[in-house]
Amino acid sequence: MALIVQKYGGTSVGNPERIKNVARRVAKQRAQGDQVVVVVSAMSGVTDGLIKLSKEITALPSEREMDMLLATGEQQTIALTAIALHALDVPAVSLTGAQAGIVTDGVHTKAKIRNITPQQVHQLLDAGNVVIVAGFQGETSEGQITTLGRGGSDLTAIALAAALKADLCQIFTDVDGVYTADPRLVPGARKLPEIAYDEMLELAGSGAKVMQLRSVEFAKKFDVVFEVRSSLNDNPGTLVKEETSSMEDVVVRGVSLDKNQAKVTLFGVPDQPGRAARIFRALSDATINVDMIVQNVSHDGGGRATDLSFTVDKPDLLKATHVIDGLKPGVGFKEAVADEQIAKLSIVGVGMRSHSGVAAKMFDVLAHEQVNIAMISTSEIKISVVIQLSQGEQALRALHTAFIG
Amino acid sequence: MALIVQKYGGTSVGNPERIKNVARRVAKQRAQGDQVVVVVSAMSGVTDGLIKLSKEITALPSEREMDMLLATGEQQTIALTAIALHALDVPAVSLTGAQAGIVTDGVHTKAKIRNITPQQVHQLLDAGNVVIVAGFQGETSEGQITTLGRGGSDLTAIALAAALKADLCQIFTDVDGVYTADPRLVPGARKLPEIAYDEMLELAGSGAKVMQLRSVEFAKKFDVVFEVRSSLNDNPGTLVKEETSSMEDVVVRGVSLDKNQAKVTLFGVPDQPGRAARIFRALSDATINVDMIVQNVSHDGGGRATDLSFTVDKPDLLKATHVIDGLKPGVGFKEAVADEQIAKLSIVGVGMRSHSGVAAKMFDVLAHEQVNIAMISTSEIKISVVIQLSQGEQALRALHTAFIG
Repeated sequence: MALIVQKYGGTSVGNPERIKNVARRVAKQRAQGDQVVVVVSAMSGVTDGLIKLSKEITALPSEREMDMLLATGEQQTIALTAIALHALDVPAVSLTGAQAGIVTDGVHTKAKIRNITPQQVHQLLDAGNVVIVAGFQGETSEGQITTLGRGGSDLTAIALAAALKADLCQIFTDVDGVYTADPRLVPGARKLPEIAYDEMLELAGSGAKVMQLRSVEFAKKFDVVFEVRSSLNDNPGTLVKEETSSMEDVVVRGVSLDKNQAKVTLFGVPDQPGRAARIFRALSDATINVDMIVQNVSHDGGGRATDLSFTVDKPDLLKATHVIDGLKPGVGFKEAVADEQIAKLSIVGVGMRSHSGVAAKMFDVLAHEQVNIAMISTSEIKISVVIQLSQGEQALRALHTAFIG
Repeated sequence: MALIVQKYGGTSVGNPERIKNVARRVAKQRAQGDQVVVVVSAMSGVTDGLIKLSKEITALPSEREMDMLLATGEQQTIALTAIALHALDVPAVSLTGAQAGIVTDGVHTKAKIRNITPQQVHQLLDAGNVVIVAGFQGETSEGQITTLGRGGSDLTAIALAAALKADLCQIFTDVDGVYTADPRLVPGARKLPEIAYDEMLELAGSGAKVMQLRSVEFAKKFDVVFEVRSSLNDNPGTLVKEETSSMEDVVVRGVSLDKNQAKVTLFGVPDQPGRAARIFRALSDATINVDMIVQNVSHDGGGRATDLSFTVDKPDLLKATHVIDGLKPGVGFKEAVADEQIAKLSIVGVGMRSHSGVAAKMFDVLAHEQVNIAMISTSEIKISVVIQLSQGEQALRALHTAFIG
């Protein structure tokens, strides 16, 4: 008998018919003799509808009250899912995040899980029930309702799996698993049977949208093996787990293209300590997330100036150029140029650590495709380049062919 | 500084605009220096929508899960109401029933309040907040979410007012208060400035639909003075309170007409002990609520048989006649006759206790209107008669004119 945590997202529980499908799937798992904990999101559209109501009252609702409001979405789904399981004669009990023992800090709308005391979940499981837990929510130790922010239901599932010492955590979604590349862009993309946490993290950070970084980070930290799979079929998905030695045989696990970035280059930045710090502090204070940063070696004769490029999410570009313009007198750069027509292309694989020449091969492939590289950034298991947006998909396919086949 | 509990029903908080209106009203009260606790229902339509979702899954959802589901309706309203108060710069904090300390028994969907520990409400009030409490819900001492059944939000308000020792409890609704008769049927009906608990109970039991009996009973038991008033205007409403000696000066406080009853008469019931018990036990087992019961004196020569009439809610009539038909062999009555074309007409007033001749005057008025009386039933402060449905409204107006003017 295994203990399995299954998480179903908002689309999977989007209406009564789909909730009945989820119940059938859960019932099947339980019929195999397993204990099942189900984590569900709000029905698709419910959270947005509640946000809309609040916005009709005021533009800036209090975060505590938004948590009170939004937590109802998941609470509705757990009740309906329990009702659907009862209709299949499966004993089931729903629990809010608070009832499931999920204790968070007090940072409303993006609370962090502090600890989980899953006694009640264990008791209900031992009494033969399927236990259905509201994702995305918890409670402070003072009894305030909190929500976990984006990707919160995945986090609930993974954290519960850790606390319950579950044998497996399954994240059901509308894709079949993690692919070597986005199948809509690369026809030859293949589903990966397994992937290392670090690869998943680098892929997620490179524009692959399967899961939020924080859930993967949490899984890595607490060594929770989880499977990303589809709620629409019975195909096996992708196991996300600690790196194994055999994983290193594959140099590149996946390639990804992020078309949602823009580049800003500051020309003639005086090459003195503290200039870069001032720039990125100002961007951070404006809550602008900077992804790649590249500083070229000084080129201005006596090494007194340098060029600095960085990328930001496209929607933040206007805000970023405003911040940068304001810094011009203080920092003393010559000119700032923004470019929206870029894409970030990444290859990811733990095998890179033990294989040399990966970067050279990547640049060769791009050169062969007449793709010019504007920025390069590398980590131990990832190489990212910024190229022209118009060449993005062609370059993605070429890299997939070259490294994955 | 007074402590006031205000309750707003589903229509009063039916959309963001109306919630903003409620917030303005609350803010005005607070600006007078009062501490305000607000109890709200689910937005109109929300509870029905959730019930519909559950019915799409199964016809008989579990009551525990229905409570989990329906409690979200009020939770949404409290958050939105707090948000609306913040938008008016009024500090406000929302609390679920559980957070407000409302502890109930474990009878899901119709739980009874066991006790209220309002420390948190007091603390939040003392810190200058308006406290917004979800009506209709509570929590068992084991932490299970419960709901209080029909009229539950009124009950929450009155029970909170008792626990908080509030100076006043205001029930805001879509009528201006309690009237001497239904103004839609009696053009001369007047709003009552005050009414005794017992009168309110008898009127509620006679078809006046302002409030559920249980909330009035609770208020009487714990001596909570409450005011029924409109959320659409600033008119004073009706104070419901303990009977005062001056109330006895008025013989009849109100007249009411209940067109939702049907009459069943059993002819030739053997006049032996236990026959009536058997009949009403069977009806009760079928969860049929019997209102008036009248047994005529025996008429069958040697006193061996009697006629028995009773009234039930019209929707229960079919079920009742089935039950009665099944009893025919056992009880041994001759014939059962059902009549849907009836109405129950009542006059209510604590003054009846000290005034004689009220019944005689009532029958005189009805005789003068050529209204035939089919059944009569009296209590200390009420006289009810069953008459033909077609004469109901005319008779109601005649009684109003005769007793109230």
